[in-house]
Amino acid sequence: MNKKRIVVALGGNAILSKDASAEAQQSALLETAKYLVEFVKKGNELIIAHGNGPQVGNLLLQQTAGSTKENPAMPLDTDVSMTQGSIGYWLQNAMNTELSKANIDKSVATVITQVQVDKNDQAFENPTKPIGPFYDKKGMEQQLKEHPEYKFVEDAGRGYRRVVPSPMPVDVVESNVINEMVSDGIIPISVGGGGVPVVKDNDHFAGIEAVIDKDFASEKLAEKVSADMLIILTAVDNVYINFNKSNQKKLDKVKVDELKEYIADQQFAKGSMLPKVQAAIDFVENTENGKAVITSLQNVGEFLENESGTIVMK
Amino acid sequence: MNKKRIVVALGGNAILSKDASAEAQQSALLETAKYLVEFVKKGNELIIAHGNGPQVGNLLLQQTAGSTKENPAMPLDTDVSMTQGSIGYWLQNAMNTELSKANIDKSVATVITQVQVDKNDQAFENPTKPIGPFYDKKGMEQQLKEHPEYKFVEDAGRGYRRVVPSPMPVDVVESNVINEMVSDGIIPISVGGGGVPVVKDNDHFAGIEAVIDKDFASEKLAEKVSADMLIILTAVDNVYINFNKSNQKKLDKVKVDELKEYIADQQFAKGSMLPKVQAAIDFVENTENGKAVITSLQNVGEFLENESGTIVMK
Repeated sequence: MNKKRIVVALGGNAILSKDASAEAQQSALLETAKYLVEFVKKGNELIIAHGNGPQVGNLLLQQTAGSTKENPAMPLDTDVSMTQGSIGYWLQNAMNTELSKANIDKSVATVITQVQVDKNDQAFENPTKPIGPFYDKKGMEQQLKEHPEYKFVEDAGRGYRRVVPSPMPVDVVESNVINEMVSDGIIPISVGGGGVPVVKDNDHFAGIEAVIDKDFASEKLAEKVSADMLIILTAVDNVYINFNKSNQKKLDKVKVDELKEYIADQQFAKGSMLPKVQAAIDFVENTENGKAVITSLQNVGEFLENESGTIVMK
Repeated sequence: MNKKRIVVALGGNAILSKDASAEAQQSALLETAKYLVEFVKKGNELIIAHGNGPQVGNLLLQQTAGSTKENPAMPLDTDVSMTQGSIGYWLQNAMNTELSKANIDKSVATVITQVQVDKNDQAFENPTKPIGPFYDKKGMEQQLKEHPEYKFVEDAGRGYRRVVPSPMPVDVVESNVINEMVSDGIIPISVGGGGVPVVKDNDHFAGIEAVIDKDFASEKLAEKVSADMLIILTAVDNVYINFNKSNQKKLDKVKVDELKEYIADQQFAKGSMLPKVQAAIDFVENTENGKAVITSLQNVGEFLENESGTIVMK
């Protein structure tokens, strides 16, 4: 593979599986960094994106428990920026360690990143993304008293949970900065947790209560920095059709048109493989020669050597 | 004033005075940004540093209240990175707004920044910086059971409070990145809250429970990026000697040697004006032609026009 500009999107669960302590998450990221350094060893320009689902959920739980009039819980846009800070710190620290072991003299830095969404996005009329703690009826009513704009859904047996919109990204506010950094030989970490959601409000970007899908945000960033490749890392080495059935079929190299047929055929699970496949298609369609890859962290070596993994192209 | 490379250090209290809501802090930062844009209008290269005292204190309170076995409170290094994320987001968003109003096309971005300290710094033997909530005796004993390494001091009448070391910065891990960004015309926000404290541990930077003074961290950053000027913003327009006495004297242009005599004469309050004066002296002594300025945010215009403020030089 020739030198390429590559955006790699890590899942939030690749950072936190069971143990939510900072130590355990830092240790998971040190493993992750070993794989990511492989891209750099091959001479590629690397840009790292990551999820924050478990981390922002935990932060919301702590803030809700500790919220007082004098020290109120922060809104969701601020919470996302806080997890960009923590996960970014852990990840750049881990990358420093692994780059130093590989004798590669490169800087890594996390950029707090705002991602613009459209305030007319229909997602705002139909919030679907559950976040934060479960409440009983009384707890929910108390929340609604303090925040009349909140929406809740009942989760059978577990209580009520707040839902927020998940709008599509339309721009990455700091994409110029990421572009310059990559050109300077720096490895940026950006659009953590899908980015801090903001909407354009006259001459101002205003934070908004929403969660942006990290795969779509990574796709938008990859477009904006003219990446050659978007790599979405997930739990499996390849995308499958007829998954877990007797006629299960692994997808290796696959064209956008073929993937669209599989989507029409409802082959991919909503909220899981479907957004990844859609983000991959978007990247290939919105760029001239871009390729998208869906594979696992553990398969990165095999991908770099033998193009193993699901590779999406025009 | 000719075009200069300037590091400006904002106090944490310039962001949060009474109202700890995100909205109030964002609104305070919008005011702050109006002044900071003045430096850019004059053609200077700007690097912004800031404190996080009230913010990290509030985060610690919430995390302590919400800490469970499954969702434990984060260590102090991670907490600092979280406030770098939140304050950085608010500040870059506010700067974007004010730059856009001034028709200046420049990018602003927060870089999560690790600051190296020496693990043999004597501060580690004598922790002095109080952080987090007040505990009664029982609460303190519970904390010591969970974290036997914690140190507490009694604050007469208010209970027990944890103290952590405040070591001196020896390097800024991401200073190369900040340097490149400034050269690219970007306005970086860095060393928030004094930076995430790390110590060198073999080939690895390990986070450590400490708080680095933000003025000393800003000074170290200013050195590392070859800044022409370090500006420390505080509540007063000038440094005074014989402060609040009948023979009070305002310092305008002042030489390092003169300031050292005032320090020997105990003219400056520990933990308040003294570290600012010391950071100013360090910057002037550690650079060839560097000047340091101590003034207020509100005096920035007067400083830029008439060199009003306390200016420290060789």
